[in-house]
Amino acid sequence: MSKQKIAVLGPGSWGTALAQVLNDNGHEVCLWGNLPEQIEELNSQHKNTLYFKDIVLDDKIKATLDLEEALRDADAVLFVVPTKVTRLVAKQVAECLEHKVIMMHASKGLEPGTHERLSVILEEEIPSDLRSDIVVVSGPSHAEETIVRDITLITAASKDLEAAKYVQKLFSNSYFRLYTNTDVIGVETAGALKNIIAVGAGALHGLGYGDNAKAAVITRGLAEITRLGVKLGADPLTYSGLSGVGDLIVTGTSVHSRNWRAGDALGRGEKLEDIERNMGMVIEGISTTKVAYEISQELGVYMPITTAIYKAIYEGADVKESILGMMSNEFRSENEWH
Amino acid sequence: MSKQKIAVLGPGSWGTALAQVLNDNGHEVCLWGNLPEQIEELNSQHKNTLYFKDIVLDDKIKATLDLEEALRDADAVLFVVPTKVTRLVAKQVAECLEHKVIMMHASKGLEPGTHERLSVILEEEIPSDLRSDIVVVSGPSHAEETIVRDITLITAASKDLEAAKYVQKLFSNSYFRLYTNTDVIGVETAGALKNIIAVGAGALHGLGYGDNAKAAVITRGLAEITRLGVKLGADPLTYSGLSGVGDLIVTGTSVHSRNWRAGDALGRGEKLEDIERNMGMVIEGISTTKVAYEISQELGVYMPITTAIYKAIYEGADVKESILGMMSNEFRSENEWH
Repeated sequence: MSKQKIAVLGPGSWGTALAQVLNDNGHEVCLWGNLPEQIEELNSQHKNTLYFKDIVLDDKIKATLDLEEALRDADAVLFVVPTKVTRLVAKQVAECLEHKVIMMHASKGLEPGTHERLSVILEEEIPSDLRSDIVVVSGPSHAEETIVRDITLITAASKDLEAAKYVQKLFSNSYFRLYTNTDVIGVETAGALKNIIAVGAGALHGLGYGDNAKAAVITRGLAEITRLGVKLGADPLTYSGLSGVGDLIVTGTSVHSRNWRAGDALGRGEKLEDIERNMGMVIEGISTTKVAYEISQELGVYMPITTAIYKAIYEGADVKESILGMMSNEFRSENEWH
Repeated sequence: MSKQKIAVLGPGSWGTALAQVLNDNGHEVCLWGNLPEQIEELNSQHKNTLYFKDIVLDDKIKATLDLEEALRDADAVLFVVPTKVTRLVAKQVAECLEHKVIMMHASKGLEPGTHERLSVILEEEIPSDLRSDIVVVSGPSHAEETIVRDITLITAASKDLEAAKYVQKLFSNSYFRLYTNTDVIGVETAGALKNIIAVGAGALHGLGYGDNAKAAVITRGLAEITRLGVKLGADPLTYSGLSGVGDLIVTGTSVHSRNWRAGDALGRGEKLEDIERNMGMVIEGISTTKVAYEISQELGVYMPITTAIYKAIYEGADVKESILGMMSNEFRSENEWH
């Protein structure tokens, strides 16, 4: 693959790690952000100490505050901004972009209020003559590991398989590997909804429960987010893949995960406001829980774990009673969501 | 449910934990084993120090060396013996049993040589007028947690849903919960094959890789054992359930798991003989790897992770090179096993 020019929008931990992967593959990368000190630090010291204290990036990676500059001559554009600003940034991109690009995103969430997937937001805000079908990059990936070039395998999903294959080639190397998928609904909802279950697994840990209980909540959680996904049009088997089970494993069993840590704190009795303040990072699982709860109510989808976490977070219910409530449900078969 | 009499065959860690669950539910439990000191200790001190040093069992749990005594008037029989002796014990049960019982097993493996599932062995060796359709009890369950009554959720699978529901009622209580399933092939193969992937995840840990890599090998491992299971007649969605993903999570991410620990030792360069000797417990994943490799060769199923582990264990291949080989495979889509 010849050298491509890529605009990476959002110099968070994952955006930075992905920028480094692309740079490692010989592509020209420009990171766009809106924090002057961060952009200055990236350009002058090649560091992003907000997320990685000791990592020095290759000096070929450029950063800018100027969206127009980032997008100029770009072959591909990668959104890695928080869910809640995706629409805003997409509007700005639509204004600046002057040619057609491969359009990708690597964020995980559902828009509060509209309940929309991020690729739908991009489709709505960016005219189709300026972009490919959206390619969603998602999977089990702690930025902290990818940035030190530890092995990472993820998914590139698009309605347009050729666009997905382009992204697969763009990113793949000896430590970073992508598998294509055409079930965009499945990959996107899995990536977003799994954060809820990570909060639940963390909460069980915070409450002092063991591996059996955590595996149970992850598995039954997987069943309920699959149930919702299927209702939204996803292939249930996508949830067995990297963006579902895979991501759920790293997010639901690892102390690196901010969603897991938020759940852990919740289980130990901390208050939501304190958790978010102490963490100082976006906890997508918190807002996704609300969105998923609302969708489940609207569509009549049975989601006991999501409901329990929603009640614990937003209605002040006792976490233990709420989450353990699922033990007292009526006897069920495993695949009632079929 | 009225008080039932249950014979639990095999006082290993899981057999003992399940005996305690049944006793907690008010049933009459008799544990059968063939180690005189262990049976003596169970009856006189109500302990099974081979597995649980500090646990004192209820004195209502009886143990015996006499299979006929264990089976007398039993309403249900639970096999929890190692895979390699299942056929032998089944033959003995067929000789001793004088009335029809609910027949269950809670072991995980495939018979070396014949490649058969354990329920098939029981069906072959025990005449159908002496037993129900086999009910398979399987899921994410460290005995060490169940024995201290930590929360555990597992599956009861049988072709006969009524038999599965009986077993669901038999075991369920406030800390132990069963979900029914009718896909016996799926539940049994998932339980057996997941041990291979646990060895692989342990090996990656032993080699020093991080959570992303382990989640990737677990997910891609899930894809390949699903591929094999589907070829054998399983429903792929069963692999997303407690006996698949759930069990894979506890086995593939927990230091409690002997399969994971065997893989970890393998990754750190230890020899198989030493690993098995040091562990002093049956490592089902080691022999299951061989069986699965043979089946995959016979049926032409693509199983790169199983093959890598097989070569590392049985052909002296370098573990790192072998397992990381999957990174250099041709570009793939996620669901080629559809």
